[in-house]
Amino acid sequence: MTDNETLMTVIAANARVAAGRLASADDATKAAGLMAAASALRDGMADILAANDIDMDAAVAAKISAAMLDRLKLDEARVMSMASAVEQVAVLEDPVGQCIDSRIRPNGLVMERVRVPIGVLGIIYESRPNVTADAAALGLRSGNAIILRGGSEAVHSNRAIHAAMLRGVIQAGLPAEAIQLVPTQDREMVGFMLRAQGVIDMIIPRGGKSLVARVQDEARVPVLAHLDGICHSYVHKDADPVMAQSIVINAKMRRTGICGSTETLLIDQDYPAPAALISGLLDAGCEVRADDMLMELDARTVSAEPEDWDTEYLDSVISARVVSGLDEAMAHIARHGSHHTDAIITADESAAARFLAEVDSAIVMHNASTQFADGGEFGLGAEIGIATGRLHARGPVALEGLTTYKWIVRGQGQVRP
Amino acid sequence: MTDNETLMTVIAANARVAAGRLASADDATKAAGLMAAASALRDGMADILAANDIDMDAAVAAKISAAMLDRLKLDEARVMSMASAVEQVAVLEDPVGQCIDSRIRPNGLVMERVRVPIGVLGIIYESRPNVTADAAALGLRSGNAIILRGGSEAVHSNRAIHAAMLRGVIQAGLPAEAIQLVPTQDREMVGFMLRAQGVIDMIIPRGGKSLVARVQDEARVPVLAHLDGICHSYVHKDADPVMAQSIVINAKMRRTGICGSTETLLIDQDYPAPAALISGLLDAGCEVRADDMLMELDARTVSAEPEDWDTEYLDSVISARVVSGLDEAMAHIARHGSHHTDAIITADESAAARFLAEVDSAIVMHNASTQFADGGEFGLGAEIGIATGRLHARGPVALEGLTTYKWIVRGQGQVRP
Repeated sequence: MTDNETLMTVIAANARVAAGRLASADDATKAAGLMAAASALRDGMADILAANDIDMDAAVAAKISAAMLDRLKLDEARVMSMASAVEQVAVLEDPVGQCIDSRIRPNGLVMERVRVPIGVLGIIYESRPNVTADAAALGLRSGNAIILRGGSEAVHSNRAIHAAMLRGVIQAGLPAEAIQLVPTQDREMVGFMLRAQGVIDMIIPRGGKSLVARVQDEARVPVLAHLDGICHSYVHKDADPVMAQSIVINAKMRRTGICGSTETLLIDQDYPAPAALISGLLDAGCEVRADDMLMELDARTVSAEPEDWDTEYLDSVISARVVSGLDEAMAHIARHGSHHTDAIITADESAAARFLAEVDSAIVMHNASTQFADGGEFGLGAEIGIATGRLHARGPVALEGLTTYKWIVRGQGQVRP
Repeated sequence: MTDNETLMTVIAANARVAAGRLASADDATKAAGLMAAASALRDGMADILAANDIDMDAAVAAKISAAMLDRLKLDEARVMSMASAVEQVAVLEDPVGQCIDSRIRPNGLVMERVRVPIGVLGIIYESRPNVTADAAALGLRSGNAIILRGGSEAVHSNRAIHAAMLRGVIQAGLPAEAIQLVPTQDREMVGFMLRAQGVIDMIIPRGGKSLVARVQDEARVPVLAHLDGICHSYVHKDADPVMAQSIVINAKMRRTGICGSTETLLIDQDYPAPAALISGLLDAGCEVRADDMLMELDARTVSAEPEDWDTEYLDSVISARVVSGLDEAMAHIARHGSHHTDAIITADESAAARFLAEVDSAIVMHNASTQFADGGEFGLGAEIGIATGRLHARGPVALEGLTTYKWIVRGQGQVRP
């Protein structure tokens, strides 16, 4: 084994031991650990900001993009908000130990299905240092040991945040190995994590599409993630025009950079007010890449190319086309969608019912903005991400998605005939 | 693409289309399809037995083992029992459409989490032709399209059973591509299935350890399975000797070939009646591979080798050792167990509580025989298998484990502030 392989083996073995202890840690201890971690983040403000300065200087020298600089940058307000986020996770209900199924068999055996932590989670992320605190908090709250691998550009910030979180965890009597930060930025460490079947139980990538694609492509460990958020809003012929106008503009423009932002607008050929929809988007500052029919409605539109239907802009750009009705809308979504979030706007309940049943996405909506695709908006508390895979957890993944279950069978001496 | 690659691509594409139709098929249609399939199995008895004769003749000529011949063999009773099993699945409650979570948000949005089929399942199995009917029935009942890849030695039997099942499915108006049998036995077809990420949603291997190991090792598609069932029964010092005696003999000897059979007996050093346990097993015809302390109790025991603690015998053999107490018992299980089913026998509720909480297995039991590890015994109906992985489904996997969920959001025009 190379030194790095040995290092990863040790980290993983320590995480497994910590996971055993965390699995039986009680609610109050985990909550106290996170409250202490939040205080330690505030108390460590000076260290964290000094570490972030080092990262920012290097990033500026390396001429990284303004967007990346903004993601990397910490200031007092951002650290305070990071600490508050940790406290918000601390007060969430502990999923561990919840009984989700209970049955008494005719022979008197009692079968209970009880939530338990998954075990060891690996978090692979990019330049946002707040992921260090967020992911560690959600992992710890759900009783999992966490292995964090952040981006090189944030290495000093991540270490300072990790050190502060760790002080809180240790203060609550929880094992230091509950939250480990991979101590080297060698890229092969990511590869070791992705191939650690049975050693790391789940990998969660947090970052841009290229990171998620690499993780999904190389991982042998199960991955919880979404690659694309190509979300659709379909304005049915029986949509209320006032509602449609309001929802579509919000779904695209409220925040264009989030995965639940609508990227494609489908307008029914019999919808009475398509011009207002297109003009409304343009007036709001959105570029509209339209099919020929919609281009005739407003000279400010541009022509959609075939690849537009498969593009997640994450920007003030939308693709828009006319469809002949519900079936063509659903066929378009089946062909171009990413199984993330898709919405229908209509007053026709039977059209809505078909859309909700037949569109194969993690989240399907009727008469609501796709921007609601968010764990907090679902009432789940903070989320680790949104999953578009089919197994384990789908849609917004919060604490419950970081647990699995075991069956507990209680008998009085029963033997099987 | 080679011809086989093209073939697999076509099979998978057809399965995806069928999955779309199955997802919106109603309960009654799916049930009717399975009832018709059961009748078609009975009506097709002569064809099925004739096909099985061809397989049996080839198997005898190839001098395969008696155990494998028995697994391959069909007779009238076995076909009738196959048909009954399909009917039993037909009357199980349909999990699809069940609402498993519902919440109304302060803004009036209604969030519902509703069970939906997973999509396309691949079943890879060996010589038992009844898996063709069982797996197809469970898959169809839960609204999934199924791709079946059976063993070469059962190829004619599988084709005849598949043809009969298909007649039932078509009679109910369901798509023929709901249940596809891979038409060639080329081994590379298995490889294509295992690497069909995003095309096949889950692979379920049914067969011996070497099959499961190959599938787990090569698959890029998620696998639902267990490799080993190294189940432990731990007789605590405060176990009732009459109960312990009865449970241990049943846990090992009721049926030795099933995955829930106990393979290792752990006896507390302060348990008062160890000799009776060991002699009882020996009297029942079980070979006991024991540690030095237990060997002194009965001259018929043999010495356990280190590898015995990691061996799934699936036979009338048990490994047995003395442990110093609960902690050593749990440490032994953590080191040698397979996360399948482990039991404690004790009258001490606090020892039981610790065992049930801390042993990291899919099923943990108190005062019951590990042979209860079975979907039917859990009241889940027929099972597709027992899973020892940590994600998606754990323990006995029945219809519910073959579903996932989607979030349905119902609004009245809400936009996100």
